[in-house]
Amino acid sequence: MSDIKMIEAAAQRARGHVRHTPLLSSPFLDEIAGRRVFVKAECLQHTGSFKFRGAWSALSGMTPEARAAGVLAFSSGNHAQGVALAAQLHGVPATIIMPEDAPALKIANTRALGAEVVLYDRAGREKREEIGARLQAERGLTLIRPYDEPLVIAGQGTCGLEIAAQAAELDVTKAEVLTCCGGGGLTAGISLALEAHAPEMRVRPAEPEGFDDTARSLASGGIETNNGPEAGLCDAILTPSPGQITFPIMAARCGPGLVVSDDEVRAAMREAATRLKLVVEPGGAVALAAALYHGGALDGDTVIATASGGNVDAGLYAEVLAAA
Amino acid sequence: MSDIKMIEAAAQRARGHVRHTPLLSSPFLDEIAGRRVFVKAECLQHTGSFKFRGAWSALSGMTPEARAAGVLAFSSGNHAQGVALAAQLHGVPATIIMPEDAPALKIANTRALGAEVVLYDRAGREKREEIGARLQAERGLTLIRPYDEPLVIAGQGTCGLEIAAQAAELDVTKAEVLTCCGGGGLTAGISLALEAHAPEMRVRPAEPEGFDDTARSLASGGIETNNGPEAGLCDAILTPSPGQITFPIMAARCGPGLVVSDDEVRAAMREAATRLKLVVEPGGAVALAAALYHGGALDGDTVIATASGGNVDAGLYAEVLAAA
Repeated sequence: MSDIKMIEAAAQRARGHVRHTPLLSSPFLDEIAGRRVFVKAECLQHTGSFKFRGAWSALSGMTPEARAAGVLAFSSGNHAQGVALAAQLHGVPATIIMPEDAPALKIANTRALGAEVVLYDRAGREKREEIGARLQAERGLTLIRPYDEPLVIAGQGTCGLEIAAQAAELDVTKAEVLTCCGGGGLTAGISLALEAHAPEMRVRPAEPEGFDDTARSLASGGIETNNGPEAGLCDAILTPSPGQITFPIMAARCGPGLVVSDDEVRAAMREAATRLKLVVEPGGAVALAAALYHGGALDGDTVIATASGGNVDAGLYAEVLAAA
Repeated sequence: MSDIKMIEAAAQRARGHVRHTPLLSSPFLDEIAGRRVFVKAECLQHTGSFKFRGAWSALSGMTPEARAAGVLAFSSGNHAQGVALAAQLHGVPATIIMPEDAPALKIANTRALGAEVVLYDRAGREKREEIGARLQAERGLTLIRPYDEPLVIAGQGTCGLEIAAQAAELDVTKAEVLTCCGGGGLTAGISLALEAHAPEMRVRPAEPEGFDDTARSLASGGIETNNGPEAGLCDAILTPSPGQITFPIMAARCGPGLVVSDDEVRAAMREAATRLKLVVEPGGAVALAAALYHGGALDGDTVIATASGGNVDAGLYAEVLAAA
């Protein structure tokens, strides 16, 4: 089970390998939000998203024997790149199973980072879990789950350790901390880290409309599932439901979820570019969108939002920026 | 005269006010360049460019009496915003004289940061220096020059102190350090800082074609002037010639200048977005363009490029990204 000791151990293993990302701000964002806004720029992490933290934690925390045999991951893109680079840096093979319709940039990057990419058809006969089970059996690979894996949650929690330390330097001890939430690995990890190091902060997951499984699960007290489409603008965080491991961690620590529209996500991407000079992908902009446009649902004078990734295809990004 | 003591004093005054910007990298950029590439992300500085360093140094280094009367600056945009915010944070008035055709974003931001903006027509009868002299006399303002001012050079030099420290952490002591060069404030400041703290690094100014006054001045040994058009893609760095104070500093310390095309600048802007998740403006991308596309003119296995600003109008930026 993930706890603060595992997060601190992950932070030790991460030293010199995982970037400390900056906590940025702009008076222009404060004005829109009506309170102080800080943005944890995880899009500047290696491979362009926080996922490298969890991947590094998992690879560095495995037994050398298991690691040497290679790792396997399912991912639409950011976890894929994180695992690919962490494996490459450890000198071990990575096999990544990705949907055919994942963003082209994410597929190309995963391959360029040395991983073998196996594409599957979301609507096809063979499910990705079946493909994975076959490859695991054939090759002796260790599966690295994207969020329901204690070492991965611990790695994402190192982001929370940094938030606590960076906020303390600015004399901020109390804040609403908004996370971009898919399966809940980042949200769970940060909430464990802040519980120990910044107990007056409250973590609140943000999700896009139609994919608000975590918000509904926190409200009902049980794991809820999305019933809408499988694909959408915020591709990085469209998991059907919170995880079996991440949900209890979140349920015990996180405040009500926040839900934003795709138009708010696009507007937040533009503000991140104009005000912070950050390229943020749709799924990485939901927390900032909630900070900027859902102030009525927030408490206190300070909000911290994770900008959790920046892997957006150039065409879509140019389209979002041009729509200003 | 600027020296390392002035830079270190500026760094002391900057503590808690000026951001330490990250030194970023990507294996994809290393591959393009054929050597290790590090990017000093000054676009993440307050107001979106390194100019805030010099402005903060100047405001914090003035006598309180002079400061209270207010400051004046000429600028097409980045120095304007830096001075405006530094003045606002010191609680003193700022008057900024800007060309009418400066990027709309830069004019709007300068106003939003509390400065009084006086627009002038580049082709008009009254020169900006005349407008400035009139306002100085009327209001008792202190002029903060964008580069030919020892306190400003010292402030820009704090960027060099950070580069030396960040590179040392990565065990890099020898590198070519490419700067985006207009009047030479950043280049001169960094070269003084590295001479003291990383003497095996060599600073080399990068400029756009048609505005290579510094490269030609370093080659001839005397101050040369651009004879082409006044405006261009890289608006932030289109000064007609290196400064009277900055040039001797550069001439004694900097290697041959590098000259890049506008197409190379656009390509570097796209790589910064895709690989580093940084929004870099044209004038802030010339050093990266030189690092990526002029490798034949560089020595050694490591290059460090400043990404000196990110204040680009959304329309132009979307156009550059969409052209990929």
